[in-house]
Amino acid sequence: MKVNEISWSDVEQEVAQTAFQIAYEREINALIQEVRGNAAQVSQLEDIWCLHNFLSARRHEIDGKYDYNYSVLIFVFATLVKQGWLHLEELKGLDKDKIAKIGSLARM
Amino acid sequence: MKVNEISWSDVEQEVAQTAFQIAYEREINALIQEVRGNAAQVSQLEDIWCLHNFLSARRHEIDGKYDYNYSVLIFVFATLVKQGWLHLEELKGLDKDKIAKIGSLARM
Repeated sequence: MKVNEISWSDVEQEVAQTAFQIAYEREINALIQEVRGNAAQVSQLEDIWCLHNFLSARRHEIDGKYDYNYSVLIFVFATLVKQGWLHLEELKGLDKDKIAKIGSLARM
Repeated sequence: MKVNEISWSDVEQEVAQTAFQIAYEREINALIQEVRGNAAQVSQLEDIWCLHNFLSARRHEIDGKYDYNYSVLIFVFATLVKQGWLHLEELKGLDKDKIAKIGSLARM
């Protein structure tokens, strides 16, 4: 079965939604702290445009990454684990095969 | 004579460069303060994207506005006076006719 055809039980959907939300909040909170820190350092125009470039890149990345769609969720979780926004143990409750797939994709 | 064909004496060029720089620094300093203030208030993702939208708009505006080109300088100064980044008296040293043109464009 292809990864994008894997079915998700009701329990798994609940686990997935919670994990997704945890990662999202973790990343957003880190971003908020980073923006505050960067902005406090702004002392010339160049710094402002650096901040703007940084926000453009992060917006593009975050908008693309947090796609809650079961056909791509294995890949989304693998990316989040790889980047450290989610820990594999937070996916406990998912089918073991899914967790193994996510773990192995995250190590790539 | 068309506005974009007006000549600028050496003395006027010096006055113009100084005035341009004053307005630029004034606006950039205000922007830096505003960015710091806005960023300190950031507490959720929506605030970050608001800040990003704000910076995109300001960057576009500032890049377009500060065009030090004698063929458009009368209009540039009129905009800066209208927006309060430059005062007419800071253009003292320019030909009276230029100052009158800038003043009347700024009131439009």
